[in-house]
Amino acid sequence: MDNKDISQAVISRLPRYHRYLGELKNNNVERISSQELSMLMKVTASQIRQDFNNFGGFGQQGYGYNVEFLYDEIGKILGMDRTHNMIMVGAGNLGQALANYMNFAARGFVFKGIFDSNPDIIGKKVSNMEIMPMSELEDFVIKNDIDIAVLTIPKTGAPDVAERLSKAGIKGIWNFAHVDLNVPDDVQVENVHLSDSLMKLSYNINRYRQENIT
Amino acid sequence: MDNKDISQAVISRLPRYHRYLGELKNNNVERISSQELSMLMKVTASQIRQDFNNFGGFGQQGYGYNVEFLYDEIGKILGMDRTHNMIMVGAGNLGQALANYMNFAARGFVFKGIFDSNPDIIGKKVSNMEIMPMSELEDFVIKNDIDIAVLTIPKTGAPDVAERLSKAGIKGIWNFAHVDLNVPDDVQVENVHLSDSLMKLSYNINRYRQENIT
Repeated sequence: MDNKDISQAVISRLPRYHRYLGELKNNNVERISSQELSMLMKVTASQIRQDFNNFGGFGQQGYGYNVEFLYDEIGKILGMDRTHNMIMVGAGNLGQALANYMNFAARGFVFKGIFDSNPDIIGKKVSNMEIMPMSELEDFVIKNDIDIAVLTIPKTGAPDVAERLSKAGIKGIWNFAHVDLNVPDDVQVENVHLSDSLMKLSYNINRYRQENIT
Repeated sequence: MDNKDISQAVISRLPRYHRYLGELKNNNVERISSQELSMLMKVTASQIRQDFNNFGGFGQQGYGYNVEFLYDEIGKILGMDRTHNMIMVGAGNLGQALANYMNFAARGFVFKGIFDSNPDIIGKKVSNMEIMPMSELEDFVIKNDIDIAVLTIPKTGAPDVAERLSKAGIKGIWNFAHVDLNVPDDVQVENVHLSDSLMKLSYNINRYRQENIT
């Protein structure tokens, strides 16, 4: 499959399809048409067909798509058919909360280690992992075949840590640090800028207020 | 200002402009051209000018934009010139981590209360707030002029809570529950679907791997 030209906008919608199809599957729905999926997900049926056509269309025949097949195929595209070894870099509030969020493991994203630069908390346990010092970062990534590093450290330290992780062969960085990272092409970055998201909400509240002053 | 037709894609980029301009301001940079901002932010200068033209262009005259003026104006558009009263609904790991994240307060987003349905933790303190029972939700929202509710509860309970908040007059929901919410037009929703974001990262890692098998 050649996915080179598929836009990130399409990719962004795939997890949502996967989520809805998983729920349909859990409810024992066997087939669904693009019209039904459209009503359920509140996107147009034409959008759904266009999105799916990027991946060969998933063979809609007769009455709609086979739910389980579609769920599995989208899962494979999303890399859900393999386990991803992860580390957490940053054992503050957010790092600990994410490390304790067990749903990630159920989806094949498994935390193998957690790191922090604060000597006072090295050795303490988070979700059955002992917090390790930053000096052990590269060794651990290499020896434990770590794919993904989750960064929940302050923005000042993040670029340096991203560079160290890249050199150690990390494949992806899930970045919660409030800074954009520059990494080589072989390292994928997905940003979760929480403050940006909150500001977008604030904008939409503000806009609604302005439009509805009577 | 009529912001009705500005796309959510443009809005999504505003917090990032605000973040970069804030850093420039902190570094005492007074003026910046769209070309310089383009190089710094790795977006095209034409994109920047197009985005800014949605808001009247911010008066680039002679050499570039006035950094502080631009920062303040974008801040106003984002509603950063007013304080937003927030509540946290859900006092689990993620809820507590977010409630303890003080940077939100510095930006004018102030937690006033925290709620949970688990009777065992009612009355315990999180970030100087006593966890309240869900029965007090509506009263608290109305009496404390709450704008924004942050949902960090499991997806099964989220739709019901969103409906209760909407009826109590909430203006916005920052939704971390792994479900899409249906609310009236006067309630704005901003989703942070963490698992979706992680899956997108997984997709990009997978794609890079497939394209670079030799």
